[in-house]
Amino acid sequence: MTLRARLTPTVPPADDDAAAAARAHGARLTKPAGALGRLESLVEAVASVTGEARPRLDRRATLLFAADHPVADLGVSAYPRAVTRAMVRNFAAGGAAASVLSTRHRAPLYVVDVGVDGPDEVPAPGTHRDPVADATEGDLVHEDGMSEAVASAAVEAGRAAYARAGAPSLVILGEMGIGNTTLASAICAGLFGEPAELWVGRGTGVDDAGHARKLGVVRQALARVGGAGPLPPERALRAFGGRELAALVGAAAAAVEHRAVVLVDGFIVTAAVALLLAAEPSAHAHFVFAHRSDEHAHARLLDLLGAAPLLSLGLRLGEGSGALLALPVLDAALALHDEMATFEAAGVPDREHAAT
Amino acid sequence: MTLRARLTPTVPPADDDAAAAARAHGARLTKPAGALGRLESLVEAVASVTGEARPRLDRRATLLFAADHPVADLGVSAYPRAVTRAMVRNFAAGGAAASVLSTRHRAPLYVVDVGVDGPDEVPAPGTHRDPVADATEGDLVHEDGMSEAVASAAVEAGRAAYARAGAPSLVILGEMGIGNTTLASAICAGLFGEPAELWVGRGTGVDDAGHARKLGVVRQALARVGGAGPLPPERALRAFGGRELAALVGAAAAAVEHRAVVLVDGFIVTAAVALLLAAEPSAHAHFVFAHRSDEHAHARLLDLLGAAPLLSLGLRLGEGSGALLALPVLDAALALHDEMATFEAAGVPDREHAAT
Repeated sequence: MTLRARLTPTVPPADDDAAAAARAHGARLTKPAGALGRLESLVEAVASVTGEARPRLDRRATLLFAADHPVADLGVSAYPRAVTRAMVRNFAAGGAAASVLSTRHRAPLYVVDVGVDGPDEVPAPGTHRDPVADATEGDLVHEDGMSEAVASAAVEAGRAAYARAGAPSLVILGEMGIGNTTLASAICAGLFGEPAELWVGRGTGVDDAGHARKLGVVRQALARVGGAGPLPPERALRAFGGRELAALVGAAAAAVEHRAVVLVDGFIVTAAVALLLAAEPSAHAHFVFAHRSDEHAHARLLDLLGAAPLLSLGLRLGEGSGALLALPVLDAALALHDEMATFEAAGVPDREHAAT
Repeated sequence: MTLRARLTPTVPPADDDAAAAARAHGARLTKPAGALGRLESLVEAVASVTGEARPRLDRRATLLFAADHPVADLGVSAYPRAVTRAMVRNFAAGGAAASVLSTRHRAPLYVVDVGVDGPDEVPAPGTHRDPVADATEGDLVHEDGMSEAVASAAVEAGRAAYARAGAPSLVILGEMGIGNTTLASAICAGLFGEPAELWVGRGTGVDDAGHARKLGVVRQALARVGGAGPLPPERALRAFGGRELAALVGAAAAAVEHRAVVLVDGFIVTAAVALLLAAEPSAHAHFVFAHRSDEHAHARLLDLLGAAPLLSLGLRLGEGSGALLALPVLDAALALHDEMATFEAAGVPDREHAAT
């Protein structure tokens, strides 16, 4: 099976009947038509994807993929590589933003190590270490991030993680990997055939010198692969991606195939989703874009994907934290749709009965 | 005591030490500095207001004030007046958006009838009927909405509701009253000395003819009071307000005086807060603006108040529903601040130790 085929989900047909039933039910609820704005279209989209007229998305999981990257040694990040491993331990210990929010919002956190460096490569407690974690990556500048075999194995690690979490109806995707905004920037520049400067930002807060190094790295990586035009998604992923990015694509593809909804976090996760959508645009309805981050490339990417995120709070943390923050908005939309009274049941006059 | 004095809270001094302690604690948490964006400034503002370096705002209440208005008989709304009473029953029965969200987000709903019409004026079950509910209002066009005595009693009804709810540390404000976007539009036009057309919108969905009537009503009301310049807040409230608007001001004033935080809903509640802030600008830090609604006047009002709302989801429902939707974002900000691990405790290298 080719890498391209692995990136390309078989999209179940949209359930127009469920969407129409959701719309009809929404029109009977005790509120003016359209008064819940974005929440109403969100419910219809979820109904169309899941085939349920009153969806609740009760089975949910946060899948967080972590890996280290040689590119971090080129001075592109404000933080040392050791942070990746320390944060993976922090996720399991409950101390990270993703830990606090996944517990609080009842979306259990599954941390998957797909390439974290560390003492003896022993997995952190509470973390699943996928065999692909023992593979190696290139630094983008001198060689591809991943071979076809490594990229394929990492995509499958994502699919396996989705299955291990019980094939949930709602997946929140997150990532951790020092240096991975550099990967995402290169992927986007390659995928859309655009210059590096449109896609390289400050990540977790790199200084001017670090930003210049990061820009140089992405430019060299793009020049190495050659060609000013857009790259096919499988080529962009191999050339510039890391294992957590490939795993994100795999988890998202599996979710789509199971009629699940994917709540998309920040720039890194959105870049992975962009790869999937380049391979299979019809999967778009499965993705709910949680927020617009403070990374300017993220706003650009969301616009190119025609995505209107739920929140815009200046976040730039990753880990799935922005998606977990938006989860109560999605949940509230579904709860309102399912639990509000109808005009008839509540004895509330609708506008058709208005005297004026 | 004058109405102006009743609108003007005695603002407790900001607790700069608590805000500084909150900022210092936030800097030690396992995330890049500033990575939680708006959530970080939100926590500092809450710390400054409450005097707690790690605030949780656990004692909370949703105060929802409801009233009917003679102006509704002038054909300014898409819905008949009877909807106000029916919705008040729906709140208590658990079927309204505010009911679903206040239960879901653990912010108990207190419905206060400050003037709902209905059979024999018997209060709806689960609703407190304040004595001011038996007073009468004017239609704005021919006479003031409220006399000084009625307005004062309605402000006190709001203060009393805050006390009855146990003087909570977080108040979510909501309202219900067919025709009350007309009141809020006239209040804003009067308060800022601007023409009616800048402030009159579609409310819950009035048609073109209704919109024209609404605009005419607000123009006539403004002309009756006379003068093109801005009105003092107490004059704008009496001339154009209804009892739920006065009660909202009173509840907000009481909350401010108790070092509480007020989560502000849509256009109507924001108009009430604008009256309070016109009387006492230094109370600004107590207000968290939950969302930007689909009512264009709301965006205008937020801009004039220098308010950056947390959400923008095209809502136009009122009832406190937008504030209740934003509540989990505020709660998540406080939970992250209180529960995340520090770099030291988690053994995560901070950027100072970065090799690059």
